[in-house]
Amino acid sequence: MQSLRQGYTAVVFGASGGIGAALTAQLASDAGCARVFAGARSAGSVDASDKVTPFAFDLADEQSIEAACRMIGEAGAVDVAIVATGFLHGGGVSPEKTWRSLDGAAMQQVFLVNAIGPSIVAKHVLGLLNADSKSVLAALSARVGSISDNRLGGWHSYRASKAALNQIIRTISIELARRNPMAACVGLHPGTVDTGLSSPFQGNVPASQLMAPDESAAHLLRVLDEITPEDSGACLAWDGTVVPT
Amino acid sequence: MQSLRQGYTAVVFGASGGIGAALTAQLASDAGCARVFAGARSAGSVDASDKVTPFAFDLADEQSIEAACRMIGEAGAVDVAIVATGFLHGGGVSPEKTWRSLDGAAMQQVFLVNAIGPSIVAKHVLGLLNADSKSVLAALSARVGSISDNRLGGWHSYRASKAALNQIIRTISIELARRNPMAACVGLHPGTVDTGLSSPFQGNVPASQLMAPDESAAHLLRVLDEITPEDSGACLAWDGTVVPT
Repeated sequence: MQSLRQGYTAVVFGASGGIGAALTAQLASDAGCARVFAGARSAGSVDASDKVTPFAFDLADEQSIEAACRMIGEAGAVDVAIVATGFLHGGGVSPEKTWRSLDGAAMQQVFLVNAIGPSIVAKHVLGLLNADSKSVLAALSARVGSISDNRLGGWHSYRASKAALNQIIRTISIELARRNPMAACVGLHPGTVDTGLSSPFQGNVPASQLMAPDESAAHLLRVLDEITPEDSGACLAWDGTVVPT
Repeated sequence: MQSLRQGYTAVVFGASGGIGAALTAQLASDAGCARVFAGARSAGSVDASDKVTPFAFDLADEQSIEAACRMIGEAGAVDVAIVATGFLHGGGVSPEKTWRSLDGAAMQQVFLVNAIGPSIVAKHVLGLLNADSKSVLAALSARVGSISDNRLGGWHSYRASKAALNQIIRTISIELARRNPMAACVGLHPGTVDTGLSSPFQGNVPASQLMAPDESAAHLLRVLDEITPEDSGACLAWDGTVVPT
């Protein structure tokens, strides 16, 4: 990433997921990158290397996030932090096709992973962002979180949790502009990526629109490389376009 | 409300709150209204009358919502249902001034009351809406839920929960248009109203902009009277203007 300082530090929260693993690998192979802290629920699920330092965290456990950020902060400032977690289905939860499937416990789970967890990560990582040159905090959002762009309906909880995340990002960006004017905070729409998250729902996606995790990660890193503080608060798609609110 | 059938049935969820109580009273005094079901956590907190039937429900208890809707449905179709609940502060929770105040448990509480609870009410009440003439489901949202209109920052959880609610409403409206084309589902921005919810935060609000609950309720009922199915999915302010997403 050319726009970050030479020898930059990256952090990926959710480094064992499809997109998160690809982001971690590409950051680690970037000549300009000095170090990648790669977090997963189990640190053992991420391979350590000379550049990659695995760490454990749980989105639902603030203490684990705080401890991870303390460890990361001891190594110096962070130039790019990416929250690459996300929850659409699993453990008996699947996206709603109708309002009749709305379920309070499932909604709580979706909000916890997609909106609340990233907020708590932001709380602890924002203070680590480099203030002497460009730095960025990004979280994986999704185009289906766009309210104005919602024409198909369904997926109530997932859509609502990503709209909530987009609002959290917008809200944080206002404070960030005051505290660290060289930093940006954005949501990212990775496209429809061939991962475990999307796999049950790829039937209606033309093969030409389904991206491999590596491809999406390369797009997302290029978007992050090109953004400026003026983009802060927005949700940007893999092709650099702004996703409407 | 002139646009509803003569002798219409109304339901207010949250009839003991500032705006909910005012809505209940004004609906009950409307000559065209035959009956108001008025729900609160304790049915005893709402006065019964010849038109007003109190009922108990708890936003966090789906069975209580389902039972209430079964009772209401036995009396016939519903013409207007309003979710007038909302949570900004209380029980040690207060709106965040900075990302450093983000707290997972507080966020869960705010999402539960402002986004998940109204969704579960919608799940059970949407099927009761009159399909033979205009009917409407409305939920109290807020202008601060608008992502594009967010210029001040702060109040992260409340803003995010209302953005989530706006997305739920938009998502429901798409299915509602198929199932019940004469019905509409909208969010409502009541203005800044002199209630317990806003009372700690009125310091910066000019007196001329602070509405009494009665005044806001009158505006909101006029907005509901004037909307058509084309407005479904939007968040409308007390003056009838569309709040941006």
